[in-house]
Amino acid sequence: MKALVYHGPGQRGWDRVDDPTIIDPTDIVVRIDTSTICGSDLHILKGDVPETTPGTVLGHEAVGTVQEIGASVSTLAVGDRVLLSCITSCGRCRFCKEARYGQCLGGGGWIFGHTINGLQAEYARVPFAENSVYKVPEQLSDEQVLFLADILPTAYEVGVLNGRVTPGDVVAVVGAGPIGLAAMLTASLYTPGRIVAIDLSDGRLQSALSFGADVTINNGREDALAEIMDLTEGLGADVAFEAVGVADTFELATSLIRPGGRVANIGVHGHSATLHLEKLWTRDVTITTGLVDTRTIPQLMTLVASGRLDPTVFATHHVRLADTMAAYDTFADAANTGALKVVLEGEESARGSTALVGASAAR
Amino acid sequence: MKALVYHGPGQRGWDRVDDPTIIDPTDIVVRIDTSTICGSDLHILKGDVPETTPGTVLGHEAVGTVQEIGASVSTLAVGDRVLLSCITSCGRCRFCKEARYGQCLGGGGWIFGHTINGLQAEYARVPFAENSVYKVPEQLSDEQVLFLADILPTAYEVGVLNGRVTPGDVVAVVGAGPIGLAAMLTASLYTPGRIVAIDLSDGRLQSALSFGADVTINNGREDALAEIMDLTEGLGADVAFEAVGVADTFELATSLIRPGGRVANIGVHGHSATLHLEKLWTRDVTITTGLVDTRTIPQLMTLVASGRLDPTVFATHHVRLADTMAAYDTFADAANTGALKVVLEGEESARGSTALVGASAAR
Amino acid sequence: MKALVYHGPGQRGWDRVDDPTIIDPTDIVVRIDTSTICGSDLHILKGDVPETTPGTVLGHEAVGTVQEIGASVSTLAVGDRVLLSCITSCGRCRFCKEARYGQCLGGGGWIFGHTINGLQAEYARVPFAENSVYKVPEQLSDEQVLFLADILPTAYEVGVLNGRVTPGDVVAVVGAGPIGLAAMLTASLYTPGRIVAIDLSDGRLQSALSFGADVTINNGREDALAEIMDLTEGLGADVAFEAVGVADTFELATSLIRPGGRVANIGVHGHSATLHLEKLWTRDVTITTGLVDTRTIPQLMTLVASGRLDPTVFATHHVRLADTMAAYDTFADAANTGALKVVLEGEESARGSTALVGASAAR
Amino acid sequence: MKALVYHGPGQRGWDRVDDPTIIDPTDIVVRIDTSTICGSDLHILKGDVPETTPGTVLGHEAVGTVQEIGASVSTLAVGDRVLLSCITSCGRCRFCKEARYGQCLGGGGWIFGHTINGLQAEYARVPFAENSVYKVPEQLSDEQVLFLADILPTAYEVGVLNGRVTPGDVVAVVGAGPIGLAAMLTASLYTPGRIVAIDLSDGRLQSALSFGADVTINNGREDALAEIMDLTEGLGADVAFEAVGVADTFELATSLIRPGGRVANIGVHGHSATLHLEKLWTRDVTITTGLVDTRTIPQLMTLVASGRLDPTVFATHHVRLADTMAAYDTFADAANTGALKVVLEGEESARGSTALVGASAAR
Repeated sequence: MKALVYHGPGQRGWDRVDDPTIIDPTDIVVRIDTSTICGSDLHILKGDVPETTPGTVLGHEAVGTVQEIGASVSTLAVGDRVLLSCITSCGRCRFCKEARYGQCLGGGGWIFGHTINGLQAEYARVPFAENSVYKVPEQLSDEQVLFLADILPTAYEVGVLNGRVTPGDVVAVVGAGPIGLAAMLTASLYTPGRIVAIDLSDGRLQSALSFGADVTINNGREDALAEIMDLTEGLGADVAFEAVGVADTFELATSLIRPGGRVANIGVHGHSATLHLEKLWTRDVTITTGLVDTRTIPQLMTLVASGRLDPTVFATHHVRLADTMAAYDTFADAANTGALKVVLEGEESARGSTALVGASAAR
Repeated sequence: MKALVYHGPGQRGWDRVDDPTIIDPTDIVVRIDTSTICGSDLHILKGDVPETTPGTVLGHEAVGTVQEIGASVSTLAVGDRVLLSCITSCGRCRFCKEARYGQCLGGGGWIFGHTINGLQAEYARVPFAENSVYKVPEQLSDEQVLFLADILPTAYEVGVLNGRVTPGDVVAVVGAGPIGLAAMLTASLYTPGRIVAIDLSDGRLQSALSFGADVTINNGREDALAEIMDLTEGLGADVAFEAVGVADTFELATSLIRPGGRVANIGVHGHSATLHLEKLWTRDVTITTGLVDTRTIPQLMTLVASGRLDPTVFATHHVRLADTMAAYDTFADAANTGALKVVLEGEESARGSTALVGASAAR
Repeated sequence: MKALVYHGPGQRGWDRVDDPTIIDPTDIVVRIDTSTICGSDLHILKGDVPETTPGTVLGHEAVGTVQEIGASVSTLAVGDRVLLSCITSCGRCRFCKEARYGQCLGGGGWIFGHTINGLQAEYARVPFAENSVYKVPEQLSDEQVLFLADILPTAYEVGVLNGRVTPGDVVAVVGAGPIGLAAMLTASLYTPGRIVAIDLSDGRLQSALSFGADVTINNGREDALAEIMDLTEGLGADVAFEAVGVADTFELATSLIRPGGRVANIGVHGHSATLHLEKLWTRDVTITTGLVDTRTIPQLMTLVASGRLDPTVFATHHVRLADTMAAYDTFADAANTGALKVVLEGEESARGSTALVGASAAR
Repeated sequence: MKALVYHGPGQRGWDRVDDPTIIDPTDIVVRIDTSTICGSDLHILKGDVPETTPGTVLGHEAVGTVQEIGASVSTLAVGDRVLLSCITSCGRCRFCKEARYGQCLGGGGWIFGHTINGLQAEYARVPFAENSVYKVPEQLSDEQVLFLADILPTAYEVGVLNGRVTPGDVVAVVGAGPIGLAAMLTASLYTPGRIVAIDLSDGRLQSALSFGADVTINNGREDALAEIMDLTEGLGADVAFEAVGVADTFELATSLIRPGGRVANIGVHGHSATLHLEKLWTRDVTITTGLVDTRTIPQLMTLVASGRLDPTVFATHHVRLADTMAAYDTFADAANTGALKVVLEGEESARGSTALVGASAAR
C-alpha cells in the first residue's frame, strides 16, 4: 500500500510500504477512507517528538472500513464503517477503566503515527480495536465524524469539561487557532453568556466570530486583562482556556480569571511557565491539564447525528488521499492558505447525503 | 479594655484601648473568652502585610460570649457562647451566596486583625455577626472548637476538599507544620490508604505520625519523589498538599502526583513558582488554590460533638489572655518550644467537662 | 392601596387594603410595577392550601421599585428596580447557607401570597430583602425578568439541574403545560440531543415544538413508553421530567428511563404514587424532588441579558394590574385562552427597549 | 468436578459435573479456592429467579487460581490468584465504558450462578476474564478479599456512594442483616457523625454496634421516625439506606430523611412501594436504586491492604468446599446460627499470614 512515511526531521514521503496485517487477536485491519493532518504531525516532522522513529507512517485521525478482524473480535465485522480514535484503549488497565484512555497503561494511549504506524495510509492495523473504534451511523458522512477523532474531543474534554463551563459563564479562549476554535464550538454546548476570543491575528479572530465568539481581543494591540475586567465588572472570566502552548499565554489565562474560576490548559507545551502563586494562592483558582481520552466520542457523535453540532466547519480543504504530500504543504502554510483541517479523501470516502450535512449546519 | 496591638514591624504591646461598641445594626460585641495566635499574625509583625496599619488589634480566632447585639440581630442573644470565624461573611454578595465567604465582596472576608480590630483582646466588635459566628453546643469546651476558627477549616477546605481526597488514596503532605498536620488530621475523615508526610525536620515528622501520617520522608536527606514512586508502583500520589508556601515545595508537590491526581495548594506564597507544563500538560493534573471560607465550621463542629475529630491535639500550650505578649514569644519560637497552637484563656474560658474532652480523643 | 385578596375558597376581590410598611429593619417596601399569576394561586383559590388564610393578598412573582428601606438595609436604595423572588431567604439559616432557600428555617421560603401578603398589589413589604430581591439591569424590561421569579428557576433547578441534563441527552418531558414548556426551554441550555414532549393535548404539544421539543407524543392515543424505546434503541430516556403532578404521569416517567437515568419530579402532587421497585431496584435510577430555591436567578438573568434566553415567550397576555380580577379568568381558562402567563402591568411597568427584546429572541 | 447444582425449586445437590473448558478466547478457567453463599442463592432455590434453569451451578463470589487462559488473554497468567467478581464486564459496551458493569449489554452483568454456571464448584469458566477478575496481592488471604466479590461493593456503591455519605452525616440504616451491616462498615470510610441502625431483631441490632452503628432502634417497639427526629433536631437523617427489600421499610426510609437528604435503596424488591409524593415533592429528596457494578473492587482492596477495612468480620462460619450442602443449611438458618457469611474453603484456600489479618482489624 501507499502511506505518508516519516523519514526523520523535515523529511517525509508518500511511499509504498507493506500492507498491515493482524498481529494480535484483538486487532483489526481497516481500509482508510478519509483521514486528516494534525498539528502534532508537523511537530514530529520538526523532530520535536523523539519517540517517533524514521519509517513510521504518520496520522492518527481517520474514518475507515473494516477489512479483517482478529480472532477475539466479536463486536465488529468486516464491512463496518468506523471512526478511529487518536487514542487507543486497552480496555483493561486502571486508567482505561476510569475512561482515562489517554493515560492507558496497557499498550494504548496515543500510539498511531507516534509509536506505531498511523492512519495517513491506505490501510492500517488497529490494536485493541473493540475499545478504540466507533461505528459510524449510516446517515453521517465521513467528514461529519472525522474531527471527532481528535480535535473536537480534545477541545471538549480538556477544555470545556475540565473547565466546567456552565450556562451564562464568561469564557475566555486564549488562542484562536484550530484547537481554540474547537473549544469555542464545543463550549457553546453549555450556552456560556459570552465567549471571548483572544489572539494576535485579526484573521483568526475573524474566524472566531463564526465559531461562537461574541467578543474578540487582539492582544497584540489591546490589553486583554483590562478588557476582560471591563467585561466582567472587575471580577475576571469564569473560565479561561489556554489554547496556544506557550508560557505567556498560560500566564495571561491565569491572570484574567475570577476568584473561583477555572483555567483549563489545552495547549501543547515545550517549556515551563511561571505560576504567580503570590497572587493566586488566595483566589480559589482551579488549573487543569490533560491529554484527550476521546471518551466523549459517542456523546459528540450523538450531537452530530441530532444536528446540534456541525464539525464540517473545520474542513477548509479537501484533497485526495494520494495527494497527502501536497496536503501537508497546504496545512503547514495555514497563515496563507487559511487551512483549519485538510480532509484527505480516499477512493471510497463516504460523503453522506447533502440534506443531512445541510441540516447539521442549522444551529 | 486590654488588647494585643500592632505598632508597626516588629512592635506589639498589650495595651489599653477603647472598648468596642456596636456601629452597624448587624454588629454584635463579644467578650473574648479564649483566643489564639496564627502564623499570619507573625507575618503582620514582620511587616509583610501592608494593609494592616499600626494601631490595629491583632487576632482572628476566638470563642466568646455575646455582650450586646445590633438592632437587626434576631438569631443571637446576649449570653450566647459563639465561635468567631477568621472569615467574616456579609451574607448577601455573590460569593457569600456561593458559600465562598473568603472572597466576600460586601465588606467581609479576612478582616479581623487585618483591616479591622481583631480578637486577641478582652472584647471585640463583630460585623455581620449573624453570618459570621457559630453558636457552640453546651457540651463542648472552648478549646474543642477554637481551632475551627481557622486552621482546621483551612486544612479541610483548601486541602482535603479541594484535593478531593477519596478512601484509599495515597495523600502526600509536603510540610508538617501546624497546617500540614491539620491537613493530615482532616484528610483522615476520608480514610485515605496512606498519608505520607514530607518535611525537613525530623521533629515535625515525628509529630506527623500522631496526626495520621503512615509514612514519613525527610526530604533533606531522602529523595521524596523516588520514595513516593516506590510507594505507588511508579504512578505517583493521588493527592498532594503543598503546606509550606515556597516555590520548591510547590514544584515537589506537582512532580510527585499521578496522572489524574490533584495538587491542593494550602501554603501562603510570597513569590511565584515554576510550573513544569512541558511535563504536566499531558498528565490530567488538577491544581487548586484557595483562601479558607470556613463554610465547613458546622460540619466540623458536628464531628467534634460526635467525638470523631479532636482538635485539642493542637493545644500544646495554655497561657492567660493577659499574658498574650509572652504567648507570642512561645509561638514564634516553635522550633524550640514545640508549639503548635497556644491557647489564650480569658477569665471565663469554658473548659467543658473532662469526660467529654476525653471522649473526643477516643477515635 | 388596591390588591388581589383571597376571601376563602372560590372567592377573591380587588380590594382596598392598608399600605404595607416597614416592620423589621431588614424589610423594604416596593411598588409593584409588573406582576403575574401562578398555578398555585389557583390552588389557593380552590381551597387546597389551608395555611393561606382569608384576607391574604395573593401573588409571589413581581418586578418593582424600592420605595422605602429598613434600618439595616445597605445594599438597596430607594428607586432601585428589583425582581422579587417567589422564595424569601433569611440568609442565615443552615439551608440558606447551602443556597437551599426554599427550605429556609429562618422565616423565609415560600411566604408571599401564602403565609404573608403577596405581590398582586400596588405595593408590598419584602422581608429579608437583601437576600431575596435582585437588581434588574437597566437594559432589561420587566417582562424579560418577571418569569425569573418562579417558573423559569423552578423548571431549571428542579428539572434541568436536578435531572443533570447533559449535552446529547434524550430528555422526556411528561406534561407540556407552562412548567413543562419552561423545562424544555431551560433544558436547551445544555443542548440535549432530543427533547420529547408528552402530553394529552395536541395544542400543548404544538406549543412544545416552539419551546424546544424535537418530538411530540400524545399519550392519549400513542404508547409513550414504546415510542421512547423506539427512539432510544430500547434503552430509555436519559432524563425524564414529571411536570404534571399526578401519579400516572410520575409512573410513566419512571418507566421510560434508561438504566443510569434520572427522573426529576417538578409537578405539585396531592397524592402518593406507586414506585415500581420490583423493576427499578436494579436499574441505577435517580429520582429527585424539590421546591425551587431561585438560587439561579442571577445565572438566568445573565443569560437573558446576553440574549441566550428569552422568557418573554411565556407572556401570552398583557393586562393592567388594576384588571387583575379579569386576568385570573383568562389564566384559569387556559384551555380556551391559550394563556401561559398573564403579565399584569402597573402604571410604571418598564417595557425595555424593543431592540433588546428583539435581540433576545434571536437564538 | 464436583459443584453445587440447582435442580429446581427447593432442590440442590453436590454433584459431579463436567469440568469447565475455555470456549471464547477471552475466557479463563479458574480453580475455586474459596467461595461463599449469598442471599440471592437462597432466592434462586425458592424458585424466585425463573431465568436460572435447573442444572445450573450456583454461586457468584470466589477467590481462585488461574488454570488455563484463552487465546486473547495477555494480562493474566496460569497460577495467578484472582478475585472473581459477581459481575462480569464485557469491557466494550456503553455501560461497561461508564463503569456501570452491572448493566453490561455485551453478555456480562450478573451471570455467574444465574444464567451460566457459577462459583460454588471446584472449577469455573470465567468469560471476559480480563475485565472481570482482580489479581489478589500476595500478602492478603482469600478471606480478606472474598467479600469484595459482592456484599461489600454492593453496600459501598449502591448505598454509601449513591447516598453520598459525607463526614458528619447522620446515616440511618433500615435493616441490619448482612447487607445493612456492610453498609455501616463501608459508610464509616466517610466518617459519618452518627450511624443509626434500625431493625426488628435485637440480635441484629447488637451486631450492628460492632459494625459501626452508634445508635440502635428496634422499630418493632420503638417509633423509628420519632427517634430519628429527636436525634436530628426535627430535621431528619442526612442519608437513609433501605437494606431489607420490602415496601414498609422503603417507606420508612423516605419518611425519616431531611430536606435535601438522600435515600439509597440497597434492598432487593419483589413488589412495588408507595411513594408519598404529596409530602416529598417539596423536600429536595434524592432517591437512588442500583445493581452493584463492583467497580470499586480495586479501591476496596487497597483499603484492605492498608489495614483500613477488615472484611473478615463477616466470616462467621468456615466450612470445607466439599461440605457446601451443609453450609447452605447453616446460612439459611441465620436466625439461629447467627451466620453472616459462610466461607467455603477448598483444599488450597489461601489463609494469609495471621499477622496481617490481625493488623487489618486494628482500626
